[in-house]
Amino acid sequence: MIYSQLSSDLWAIRLKDGDDILMSLRRFAESKGVRAGLLEGIGSLKKVRLGYYDFESRKYSWQAFEEGMEILNLSGNVSTKDTAYIPHVHVTLGRKDFSTLGGHLDDGSLANMVEVFVRKLPGELVKAHDEKIGLNVLQLSRKL
Amino acid sequence: MIYSQLSSDLWAIRLKDGDDILMSLRRFAESKGVRAGLLEGIGSLKKVRLGYYDFESRKYSWQAFEEGMEILNLSGNVSTKDTAYIPHVHVTLGRKDFSTLGGHLDDGSLANMVEVFVRKLPGELVKAHDEKIGLNVLQLSRKL
Amino acid sequence: MIYSQLSSDLWAIRLKDGDDILMSLRRFAESKGVRAGLLEGIGSLKKVRLGYYDFESRKYSWQAFEEGMEILNLSGNVSTKDTAYIPHVHVTLGRKDFSTLGGHLDDGSLANMVEVFVRKLPGELVKAHDEKIGLNVLQLSRKL
Repeated sequence: MIYSQLSSDLWAIRLKDGDDILMSLRRFAESKGVRAGLLEGIGSLKKVRLGYYDFESRKYSWQAFEEGMEILNLSGNVSTKDTAYIPHVHVTLGRKDFSTLGGHLDDGSLANMVEVFVRKLPGELVKAHDEKIGLNVLQLSRKL
Repeated sequence: MIYSQLSSDLWAIRLKDGDDILMSLRRFAESKGVRAGLLEGIGSLKKVRLGYYDFESRKYSWQAFEEGMEILNLSGNVSTKDTAYIPHVHVTLGRKDFSTLGGHLDDGSLANMVEVFVRKLPGELVKAHDEKIGLNVLQLSRKL
Repeated sequence: MIYSQLSSDLWAIRLKDGDDILMSLRRFAESKGVRAGLLEGIGSLKKVRLGYYDFESRKYSWQAFEEGMEILNLSGNVSTKDTAYIPHVHVTLGRKDFSTLGGHLDDGSLANMVEVFVRKLPGELVKAHDEKIGLNVLQLSRKL
């Protein structure tokens, strides 16, 4: 992973051949102290592990795809839970025949080349486990 | 819907089980006076109403899908028309088998859990009806 | 293409019927001197030329689709290489039946109507050809 800092709150990152996408983003957030952030990117990957969360059974199902695919869109955010940095990332992927697939991005997804922009946000975004949902969710203070 | 304000022009929102996604975003924009804004999010929904606009017949076709799906990407903007706040939102969705679908998001689409970031932009974005296109479109002052 | 400047570093653009999407974004970046930028948009197109880059053969394959499709998401960035402005854009598209496709956006893709936001970033993003990858890639100064 290489990067440049463009301003006090913005970095451009390029992930290289074989870089683990989610782990790199987690490591980057930790390294820069990005406790609240937004992520956006495009690129290509060679292997992906996708998750789908079933809100009824409250279980993730996972599937790996080992093929070169365009990353049509990588979207997500960074928050923290206790001492852990949590990049939450979804991807839409394009196959060689231009058909698409996508899901929740897991560790074990490896870049061909990915351009990601990380924007640090003011303040903190904190997650905590929600028993009813079965996931770590953003703790936000106001209601509307 | 719960939220936190991260800066003078940025909010993080979490939509909860059963929240109408588009209506919540419209209500949020109204509540905060976001007359020009950008929207980005990821999450999961339990029901969606998608639209496809045919520029030849100048008609929307609509279809509802009642199944849990990951929101791979929610993108859009907020503008106003007369006194109405208009969130214009497109979504890409991922099924349990990681196949995808998507379209123009309509009222009646219900969240499982959605993380959305709303950025208020300086100035205003105003839409007006365009007879030829058949849609409300952004009124922008300069030509290139 | 029409546009409004919302702040010193942000523009809203509306592409009109028949505008070449990528060429318009390149022309816009040149016109405004956007040597580093982020792009995001939604809309509809009538014709698209999509690319898929194979990192093993180091060749693009291209395919054109001539049908009206929703632009579910347009994501990318602007950099420069020598004197050229390079918008790098990926799109996810939605068909009339709400199925999706997508890839790397090429010249020759024509808008029905597209709303794009261009954010100018501080500093420069420079690309150079990488022999091993076979592509122009971002030159970033630091390693992690």
